[in-house]
Amino acid sequence: MRDVAIIGVKNTKFGEMWERSFRDIVVEAGVGAIEDSGVSGDRLDGMYVGNMSGGQFVEQEHIGALIADYSGLALDLHVPSTRVEAACASGGLAFRQAVMAVASGHEDIVMAAGVEKMTDVSSTGASSALAAAADREWEGIMGATFPGLYAMVARMHMHQYGTTSEQMAAVAVKNHKNGSMNPIAQYKNPITVDSVLNSIMVADPLHIFDCSPITDGAAAVVLAPADVAHEYTDTPIYIKATAQASDTIALHDRRDITTLDASVSAGKRAFEMAKMTPADIDLVEVHDCFTIAEICAIEDLGFAKKGEGGTMTEEGETAIGGKIAVNTSGGLKSCGHPVGATGIKQVVEVTQQLRGEAGGRQVDGAEVGMTHNVGGSGATAVVHILARER
Amino acid sequence: MRDVAIIGVKNTKFGEMWERSFRDIVVEAGVGAIEDSGVSGDRLDGMYVGNMSGGQFVEQEHIGALIADYSGLALDLHVPSTRVEAACASGGLAFRQAVMAVASGHEDIVMAAGVEKMTDVSSTGASSALAAAADREWEGIMGATFPGLYAMVARMHMHQYGTTSEQMAAVAVKNHKNGSMNPIAQYKNPITVDSVLNSIMVADPLHIFDCSPITDGAAAVVLAPADVAHEYTDTPIYIKATAQASDTIALHDRRDITTLDASVSAGKRAFEMAKMTPADIDLVEVHDCFTIAEICAIEDLGFAKKGEGGTMTEEGETAIGGKIAVNTSGGLKSCGHPVGATGIKQVVEVTQQLRGEAGGRQVDGAEVGMTHNVGGSGATAVVHILARER
Repeated sequence: MRDVAIIGVKNTKFGEMWERSFRDIVVEAGVGAIEDSGVSGDRLDGMYVGNMSGGQFVEQEHIGALIADYSGLALDLHVPSTRVEAACASGGLAFRQAVMAVASGHEDIVMAAGVEKMTDVSSTGASSALAAAADREWEGIMGATFPGLYAMVARMHMHQYGTTSEQMAAVAVKNHKNGSMNPIAQYKNPITVDSVLNSIMVADPLHIFDCSPITDGAAAVVLAPADVAHEYTDTPIYIKATAQASDTIALHDRRDITTLDASVSAGKRAFEMAKMTPADIDLVEVHDCFTIAEICAIEDLGFAKKGEGGTMTEEGETAIGGKIAVNTSGGLKSCGHPVGATGIKQVVEVTQQLRGEAGGRQVDGAEVGMTHNVGGSGATAVVHILARER
Repeated sequence: MRDVAIIGVKNTKFGEMWERSFRDIVVEAGVGAIEDSGVSGDRLDGMYVGNMSGGQFVEQEHIGALIADYSGLALDLHVPSTRVEAACASGGLAFRQAVMAVASGHEDIVMAAGVEKMTDVSSTGASSALAAAADREWEGIMGATFPGLYAMVARMHMHQYGTTSEQMAAVAVKNHKNGSMNPIAQYKNPITVDSVLNSIMVADPLHIFDCSPITDGAAAVVLAPADVAHEYTDTPIYIKATAQASDTIALHDRRDITTLDASVSAGKRAFEMAKMTPADIDLVEVHDCFTIAEICAIEDLGFAKKGEGGTMTEEGETAIGGKIAVNTSGGLKSCGHPVGATGIKQVVEVTQQLRGEAGGRQVDGAEVGMTHNVGGSGATAVVHILARER
């Protein structure tokens, strides 16, 4: 297997983009990543696109070919393009497929993109579409949507470990602070613990400020074999590990609902592949679809002891400048969560941090970063480790 | 890159399965393929699942994890499972990803599956869902569905090359004859040219017997590195080539609507990879979503000269025992077309032929076979070449 490097990245603005279409935003991301890489578009050997539900959100499937077409890569070049889906982990899995395509030698210059256009349906329609990431026959059909599922996780975490609503609110406060320094973020307004606790209740104990929003957005990266990456960029970022794991799709079938075993498994496999431990990681983008999810994630990945994620957050250890910088982009909570794009946006953020291009939210001396992308309530998890040094 | 072999295969029955669920049928295929391979299920390193639109057909996305879960591979084993989508080429692309995963050395024993449950919505709902494989903004929104798009291809082929309705009907007659010998086929009734020409018109010049049906079904194969394949089976089938290409998603943007450039490109790349020519192929499963599509396919892949696909079919050269056996399974037309499963079913059919297990529809002495799977009206094409000899 060949080593693989990132040579170009691009996020679109994340937010409610009423005036733009699905294909507009993904082409902006793709063309931007190509420009950033310095590679000519006609050098692309393949594309992988993460998208959860074009079918339900914009009545469009066959996303891979659509994007190759609108990027000018289909008519004459016939570049193969493959859509990958694993609910909110679709972007992370698209990146993983792209890494494997280059590592295998099947393809050299490959794009991984992610996109979701979620505001073309009503918010009820969006909730219903998102519920298709859970177990339709045992969860969705009973009326369970994701705020309810993660509320159960939160209640159990509070019961077992004494985690508090204030600790969950601290996740949102930190991520909004980080997001306020991210030009692409959907929400750039700093918030306080009180504003979270006083916001309307969505599914007790989760307030609306504990929840990530409905978002339009796209992100893309360009990959190359590590041996040639320096031909395109002075700051290639190397992929040290890619790991993916599955768990039961329904929450009630899990061993323990406060632990996402898929995250634990993918994290362990990634650390083994990179020959690293959590102490080697300078920053991590975790999947904070709800504030409780970030607390679980830092525990499941080994950055906090089980049950101590809330305390660690409240004490500022996950802030920029803390023990481990978590969600410097603002995370899903503040940067926004276009579900198919999130996994790629995480890779873009870590790449910009390792390049030293993260502006006000830069983690000083960042050498190694991680991404953690989750599908549904944890039935899919995918973890990547990226580094400045090969 | 490592050589890769097929060690197990399984198709479910194809048809209208009102009494069975999406997850039932795909688990039947997956477990069947594992049993056929002789490998223990806990040896699986990864799964790839082709599915066009669980979201629209059964309100279920996150198909990969769902299937790992219901196959018993998620709770303790956490086997990574990835859904791949390219409309009706979803199965072919899932197979391709699985081949690349094994070839790369990332994974050893890998399953590729395909599934679609299309009869849980109305036929209008199914047509609407399928139209999401075309260009929603320029085709679907104007009312164009696939019979209309392929009718335009047929009209142009008739105009340019003198292809007749009788020649198109001959495709259906041949495929129903083949399907009548396939235990899994949706339609096992032989038909005549007259019965095609007298069937109701769907989109002039395509009669309903020129169209593939709405179908439920699943299929699965198990792959292993070629070096160890003989540990599991006496008749491994080797993958000699995997190739994929894109074209414009809208028909009106094509260079020539009677030629699917993605098929031409994927076919050429496959022949180059395998160091073969059309003369080396004993049988081919092509994507006959409409009868005209089979005529285009055998031309685009080089089995017929341009414009002569209709004549060749009418003269029996594509029948079992003819110059090149086309769609021994009965094709999409008679075997049925559960859109996400079709690309895998094609691989199962060719494997069974090369193993000599195809019963009444066996091609004598078959050594090399090809599969050709198309998404939409040709925006994605994927071609595989399989052989008895490594």
